Amino acid sequence: MKLKVKDMDIATGGVLIAILNIEDAKRFDLYPEDRITIRKGKKMTTAVVNVAESRKAVSPGKIGLFEEVIGKIKAKQGDNVDIDIQEKPKSIALIKKKLDGHSLTAKETDTIVKHIVQGRLTDIELAYYIASGYMKPLELGEIVALTKSMVKYGGHLKFNKKFIIDKHCSGGVPGNRTTMILVPILAAAGLTMPKTSSRSITSPAGTADTMEVLAPVSQSLDKIKKIVKKTNGCIVWGGAVDLAAADDKMIRVRHSMSIDPEGMLLSSILAKKAAVGSTHVLIDIPLGKDTKIKTKKEAVHLKRMFIKIGKRLGMKVKVIITDGTEPIGNGSGPVLEARDALYIFRRDEKRPLDLEKKSVMMAAEIMKMVGIKDAKKKARQILDSGIAYVKMKEIIKAQGGNPDIDPDKLRLGKYSYTYKSPKSGTIYDIDNITIAKMARIAGAPRDKEAGVYLYKHERQKVKRGEKIFTIYSDSKVKLNYALNILKRRGGITIG
Amino acid sequence: MKLKVKDMDIATGGVLIAILNIEDAKRFDLYPEDRITIRKGKKMTTAVVNVAESRKAVSPGKIGLFEEVIGKIKAKQGDNVDIDIQEKPKSIALIKKKLDGHSLTAKETDTIVKHIVQGRLTDIELAYYIASGYMKPLELGEIVALTKSMVKYGGHLKFNKKFIIDKHCSGGVPGNRTTMILVPILAAAGLTMPKTSSRSITSPAGTADTMEVLAPVSQSLDKIKKIVKKTNGCIVWGGAVDLAAADDKMIRVRHSMSIDPEGMLLSSILAKKAAVGSTHVLIDIPLGKDTKIKTKKEAVHLKRMFIKIGKRLGMKVKVIITDGTEPIGNGSGPVLEARDALYIFRRDEKRPLDLEKKSVMMAAEIMKMVGIKDAKKKARQILDSGIAYVKMKEIIKAQGGNPDIDPDKLRLGKYSYTYKSPKSGTIYDIDNITIAKMARIAGAPRDKEAGVYLYKHERQKVKRGEKIFTIYSDSKVKLNYALNILKRRGGITIG
Repeated sequence: MKLKVKDMDIATGGVLIAILNIEDAKRFDLYPEDRITIRKGKKMTTAVVNVAESRKAVSPGKIGLFEEVIGKIKAKQGDNVDIDIQEKPKSIALIKKKLDGHSLTAKETDTIVKHIVQGRLTDIELAYYIASGYMKPLELGEIVALTKSMVKYGGHLKFNKKFIIDKHCSGGVPGNRTTMILVPILAAAGLTMPKTSSRSITSPAGTADTMEVLAPVSQSLDKIKKIVKKTNGCIVWGGAVDLAAADDKMIRVRHSMSIDPEGMLLSSILAKKAAVGSTHVLIDIPLGKDTKIKTKKEAVHLKRMFIKIGKRLGMKVKVIITDGTEPIGNGSGPVLEARDALYIFRRDEKRPLDLEKKSVMMAAEIMKMVGIKDAKKKARQILDSGIAYVKMKEIIKAQGGNPDIDPDKLRLGKYSYTYKSPKSGTIYDIDNITIAKMARIAGAPRDKEAGVYLYKHERQKVKRGEKIFTIYSDSKVKLNYALNILKRRGGITIG
Repeated sequence: MKLKVKDMDIATGGVLIAILNIEDAKRFDLYPEDRITIRKGKKMTTAVVNVAESRKAVSPGKIGLFEEVIGKIKAKQGDNVDIDIQEKPKSIALIKKKLDGHSLTAKETDTIVKHIVQGRLTDIELAYYIASGYMKPLELGEIVALTKSMVKYGGHLKFNKKFIIDKHCSGGVPGNRTTMILVPILAAAGLTMPKTSSRSITSPAGTADTMEVLAPVSQSLDKIKKIVKKTNGCIVWGGAVDLAAADDKMIRVRHSMSIDPEGMLLSSILAKKAAVGSTHVLIDIPLGKDTKIKTKKEAVHLKRMFIKIGKRLGMKVKVIITDGTEPIGNGSGPVLEARDALYIFRRDEKRPLDLEKKSVMMAAEIMKMVGIKDAKKKARQILDSGIAYVKMKEIIKAQGGNPDIDPDKLRLGKYSYTYKSPKSGTIYDIDNITIAKMARIAGAPRDKEAGVYLYKHERQKVKRGEKIFTIYSDSKVKLNYALNILKRRGGITIG
């Protein structure tokens, strides 16, 4: 059957959509979510049918195509196309199998991942897949298969090195930017660390947002390869290289319900490590009341899973469970966190010692994994001697940034408010969520110069009137909103 | 924040969608599937955010509104609207609770149903809800609550009668149009039967498609009330009156995965009975290899559930498990099935005796339920005497059809092919799916005059060359396709 193209001028970001008028849909016995093939000359694609109930959107005889479909068959407004009914993709029956509580073979999982990446599954079908993995956790073999297929159908990198190292943090601790310190130390120690990081979703800054203060982080796979060849390391944004393309599509569907099925979460993390050829991976699981992983039991279970799956993927994984009860480092927000990192490299007296200590410990753990002796001493020396700073400058330069940036000249939000202690005493609690919310409402991570800077940490003594933190924002209104959070939630407990 | 309206000219059929350019989305910290409120003057609505990655679809500073949103706030192209971030609807947390394996209170279920009807949940979220009910069946109390809420948030009817009767068939048997015969018999017996039926989704005809050959079936609630007051009965299309509006929205999301979670299926059926105030309901579960319900065990389980839920809703439900191994009646396809019904009313010798027998049996079962004595004899008399036919004519006329239609003058597809027995013997099997597929490919139910007419049934003797069935179609191409099905599948077993 022939129809005339209407260019809908809408992009879904993945799924291939074609809209038919309800009269044509009835005539062809098509229903929303049915699949059709659309052919223009020798070009062909499949698409998912939506139905327009009014003639306004798409009139009979026409077919409304979204940008992804237009692109695939190079169609223009008014072109004639042929459409045909298509059988549903096999992956739908496989998702049904998961809903029925069965496990899938590696080949079956591979079919699902392939179809996700090809845009052949709708968001509804993806939601069913994710729900199945949430209500009945994937088996170990399924997680391994999912991870391998995610790597297969995404971008990947290969370095001819014996050791490729990586790290991951499960999150929930403001300011915990160890990657910024770890990569230069380890690269200076001669290890290869092609580190891809994420941007923030719910925190004041992701590592990618922070590094972006110092250098561009959206790099192509080719460029990453060059940077790492030159410097042994990089700190780039993973989202720019589609390391696990299927995962990006699944995250969108998980977002609205805020569910992270365990197996899919593990796959998502490890696929990105496998995609850059990692041989040794350190995973940091901070534990605290507001961290992503909340109980020791959960942390120990995850630790076991990470190690097992890593083994099946040929990666050595070490997991450390760390203290996540209060923010780490002084700054929360991209510029403040980047400044903390530079203070550490420059051995500035304003450097946050907690972040430095944790980073050196983690660097040493990784060095031990690959058999380096006296690891802690060596890591400390690389940092103390300024070698790490030289390496950081090399990486900043290789990524296209300015290596000579002065941390004290980084611009901060033009409005600020400094909270001072209402009494003398000891700080018992600094609430992660309050700090993160204040920083976000002040504008972070979108406004890089917004955030919260802490002068004090838990268990320290303060005098009445002494500074505890400063909020920075480019907007007076946002600054006031941020302060409201403190009033409403509390967040600093002094006793 | 203020944005300028772009009228997207697209209707989703329910969900309220607003598209922001990715730059605005980033600026406002909004993600796809987030909720916003949109305000124009005093009019306000909520909507779900989609994000346009290109400037072509929606440029920065604009907001693309789908028809449902345009309608709610009476916006025009170029209008200024105010948008605000909105908390997610409470129903999302409740769906999450279901995914976590918990059951919901009646009030919680009510919130979900309300939000479904209001278009506040996206298809993704609905899919999660359905998946949860599929993987962990709803409890009895939840099904009752779901049914009550579906009735509450949909159209409903009230008749001041002691008995309101209804019936339902679980389906999968071509030609099984008992409703066409039952309603006139029971209405003639003085019972009130405001029957709403569905159109076909996968069969050659639904009751609504068949009745439509004789009279209009899309009637408003007011009109249905008038028809039933006048004649005691009606045979109308349920889809025209939104008897369970939430169910219609859920069916769309169930369609792509072909899953019918038990509790949701039970609710869907019984809500439509409760919405017209039914007091007595007969449920027919045909059993055969191709019927919807496939095993005795499943049928018995469903029977128990129907009765229990009915009781909780104040409805008396009787369930019969019947033979569904072969088509019932001779015709499959709207005109052929309507003709069968008229033959029965007119006591024509061409009438299908199996359909007549089953209909009389079912009419008697319903009459017994409300305490009528000698039910079978009475039902038979009403039919034999022509009283049922008079009643059918009254109903056809009340619905706006022509009561004097001659069954032999109903137009059939202009192309036909008659299949004759290749040998003499006994018919052992007539395959439901082959008959249904042939009829559908020939054009039914869209082309009312298409279908398959059977001259023989199982266990009858045939001579070589004797007619077994005729396929009717308005298209030679479709007729040939239909014949291919027989060649490919077989379907008539003679031994």
